[in-house]
Amino acid sequence: MLENIDLSKSIGKKEYEELMDDFGIRMGELQRKAWKMGIPVMVVFEGWHASGMAEIINRFLMPLNPMGFELYTTGKPCPEEENRPLVWRFWTKIPHRGKIAIFDRSWYKRALVEHLHEDAADDAITKCINGLTYFERQLADGGYLIIKFFLHISKEKQEERYEAIKKKGIPLLLVKEEDGEIASRYERNLPLIERMLEKTDIPQAPWTIVESDDLNFGTIKVIKTFIWALEEKIKTAEKENSGPDMQGKESAVSRPLSPSVLEKVDLGKSLSNHKYKELKKVYQKELGGLQFDLFRQGRPAVIVFEGWDASGKGGNIRRLAQIFNPRLYKVIPTGVPSDVELAHHYLWRFYRHIPEAGKITIFDRSWYGRVLVERVEGFCSDQEWRRAYGEIRELEEVLANNGTIIIKFWLHMDRDEQLRRFRERGNTPYKQWKITPEDWKNREKWDLYEEAVDEMLQRTSTSYAPWTIVESNDKFHSRVKVLQTVAETLKRELNAPDKSS
Amino acid sequence: MLENIDLSKSIGKKEYEELMDDFGIRMGELQRKAWKMGIPVMVVFEGWHASGMAEIINRFLMPLNPMGFELYTTGKPCPEEENRPLVWRFWTKIPHRGKIAIFDRSWYKRALVEHLHEDAADDAITKCINGLTYFERQLADGGYLIIKFFLHISKEKQEERYEAIKKKGIPLLLVKEEDGEIASRYERNLPLIERMLEKTDIPQAPWTIVESDDLNFGTIKVIKTFIWALEEKIKTAEKENSGPDMQGKESAVSRPLSPSVLEKVDLGKSLSNHKYKELKKVYQKELGGLQFDLFRQGRPAVIVFEGWDASGKGGNIRRLAQIFNPRLYKVIPTGVPSDVELAHHYLWRFYRHIPEAGKITIFDRSWYGRVLVERVEGFCSDQEWRRAYGEIRELEEVLANNGTIIIKFWLHMDRDEQLRRFRERGNTPYKQWKITPEDWKNREKWDLYEEAVDEMLQRTSTSYAPWTIVESNDKFHSRVKVLQTVAETLKRELNAPDKSS
Repeated sequence: MLENIDLSKSIGKKEYEELMDDFGIRMGELQRKAWKMGIPVMVVFEGWHASGMAEIINRFLMPLNPMGFELYTTGKPCPEEENRPLVWRFWTKIPHRGKIAIFDRSWYKRALVEHLHEDAADDAITKCINGLTYFERQLADGGYLIIKFFLHISKEKQEERYEAIKKKGIPLLLVKEEDGEIASRYERNLPLIERMLEKTDIPQAPWTIVESDDLNFGTIKVIKTFIWALEEKIKTAEKENSGPDMQGKESAVSRPLSPSVLEKVDLGKSLSNHKYKELKKVYQKELGGLQFDLFRQGRPAVIVFEGWDASGKGGNIRRLAQIFNPRLYKVIPTGVPSDVELAHHYLWRFYRHIPEAGKITIFDRSWYGRVLVERVEGFCSDQEWRRAYGEIRELEEVLANNGTIIIKFWLHMDRDEQLRRFRERGNTPYKQWKITPEDWKNREKWDLYEEAVDEMLQRTSTSYAPWTIVESNDKFHSRVKVLQTVAETLKRELNAPDKSS
Repeated sequence: MLENIDLSKSIGKKEYEELMDDFGIRMGELQRKAWKMGIPVMVVFEGWHASGMAEIINRFLMPLNPMGFELYTTGKPCPEEENRPLVWRFWTKIPHRGKIAIFDRSWYKRALVEHLHEDAADDAITKCINGLTYFERQLADGGYLIIKFFLHISKEKQEERYEAIKKKGIPLLLVKEEDGEIASRYERNLPLIERMLEKTDIPQAPWTIVESDDLNFGTIKVIKTFIWALEEKIKTAEKENSGPDMQGKESAVSRPLSPSVLEKVDLGKSLSNHKYKELKKVYQKELGGLQFDLFRQGRPAVIVFEGWDASGKGGNIRRLAQIFNPRLYKVIPTGVPSDVELAHHYLWRFYRHIPEAGKITIFDRSWYGRVLVERVEGFCSDQEWRRAYGEIRELEEVLANNGTIIIKFWLHMDRDEQLRRFRERGNTPYKQWKITPEDWKNREKWDLYEEAVDEMLQRTSTSYAPWTIVESNDKFHSRVKVLQTVAETLKRELNAPDKSS
């Protein structure tokens, strides 16, 4: 994509200033319009070292209202970033609806430095690039406008600018060695960068190559592209809002008729109190040791609890958590999203809690809410929850590729047992807070939920993140099965010696 | 405070379990009550190494609903934390109203490791400890409940536990060397820790020493103290809500009658367009170089812009920012606080944007909103804005002690000039968005604002953070004075050679 680019283009000072006067006003207008319409925008700057990025970015910022944008300079990662998948640190920075996030270098630079070495295995390169395209496509599908610039300069211009920087004694502001290294390898890097640009030039987030030998020309090209892209996005968004209801059309697609997974579950399984106590002790002891193996090997683990109301998620989690060291685990309960969470992509609030290497995050409900409560209650469109199966598989694939051990539980029970528990909660003073009108309302939609659960279990069970259905009419059986599954999965994944038998 | 503590206390397994059953239910009730009442709670755990902290914390967590707390394990700081005042990283973690933040080691441990060396100068120790007490007192005054535990064990118990840990091969989870070092210096550290505990045992946030040779006893003491403190806080909060209006009484305190600062301002100052362009060029060029001196010397800088509506804050900021490298500065506009911001202490949202070493944050309006708009519009109580003068001086003192260069501008103009600008904005199509009914409303309260501004300028001008009043009836004079003041202050603080003359 960088070949045959004419780098000799330039714009004189007077013409530049006149253009900027007009464009500046237009940018301000568009920014206010995007704010009103709630369109989130991401602007990515990549390019050669000494391509004038800082200068072009600062000129680009000047006409914008600082209230509505955030600039992120991407340098060396913090340990807490390093210990998570590459995209994590960018997921946490996606803009609030209506705002603009500008990336002064981005996931591309980090992918180059951290993963895309010349001698990286083809498989590793593919995985890495897949992760980046998942990230961008998911955001674009969620309504984010993504504009990507690659600032291109000639080798001669780069050398000329190095000289000028050296002469003026300006300190290097980004990580020094890395930049220096990459810079000195202009030609050697070219094929790898070409490949990265080509593979990630997806229709939802295309690249714009910016000829930057002349900074005036470069700035104007950036600003014109920004204005054009935002105008287009606004037009599309307006059409979607006023046009015919596309969602109704989509929802007419017939659902797959497959044999029910839930029907086959044997809810008669149970355990005596005595046997329960004995097995609980065995598995808890084992897990007490396994957590340190996990820590030593630097493997992250995600444990997801989904299940019917009153199926015992809380009690199960407590029996798991009580043997862990609080420095090694976190329980993340998923409730009604806050205003700020609603103003971001639905995966944002979960990405924030992805565990770092060696640690465990237990999700009490999770991203599966998209295909359960949000689907059944109509909190998202048909199109959105249908798309979510693929998005969730991608999310879990990215985690698994980063070494994450993923364990997912569906706590299953029948209607009668739920009714019994609801009544018990209602009759026990210190449990009353656990039962709300909401719970009774959800219960009425049992059949709709059952259909959603079934589809979820079928569409999101993968080799790297399989579901475990836990028969939970009997609490003792349920708790032991959870403890056992976690212990055995960790043991297998960590190649730990079997001490349980 | 640690002397003469009887460490032999213990509680048997059966008694412990019975107590925990009752206390567990009570903790849940209190947590829900605090949530409903919007009381934010901070629980701090400090103590000797191997004092059983992880175990006690995990037992403490079990009865709590994970929806309502966040546990922070305090280890080695990230670079972005290291490059800011010690309290910064804890200000960013204060709880949302109604929630509980639990600190597994805290600002105390970090103060010991980073600042309170045995050979630190007395002055440095005082400054550090002052910073910690400001932090806690400000939060307590803002309605936060702070509960601090020091887990105390005997030297013999510590040695015994080390042996056990070694034997079991459990990895150390917090930063190793530091812990090891501190642990091996149990006795040498004692006087310093005693001093720290005594100096920070303030009525708003007292210490509880927890005898932890026996973990059952330690856990029960922690939980009983937590229950007691939260019950007391709830009682007080209920009384405050139902009692007589104390605020009315406070507001009767007569205001200080001092000569007006604003009256003496000469608003006739102006500059020709020609002279403006000439001087702007001189100072901008100088500032272009000074930003790199700031970066090289690792000094942070805070530039605050306050001023009347339409006094030119935005234009002034743009002329300053356009010569800075975007990697070195940030503009933080302060608007109406979001729901999440309102659910935190009012300083929280500003602390988040404190610059790191070598960088500049420009605040377009700031924490001074507390004593300006919030005072005049009644968005906070009289007691609150009166207290704010001291809180703001403390905030700026903490920043200055950390090496921050603080520059504060009040852009002053008169009523007639404001009217002229409002009309101009209304008549210029691309400026119309800048003028809102809000602006006209504020204008009607000119006298009240003037009184507030005057008191602010008097009460918050300090040697380490003086105000500069900028005569802004004439934009050219205003802009040059701002550029000049920033250039000269940076030059003086950075001992940079004078190149302007």
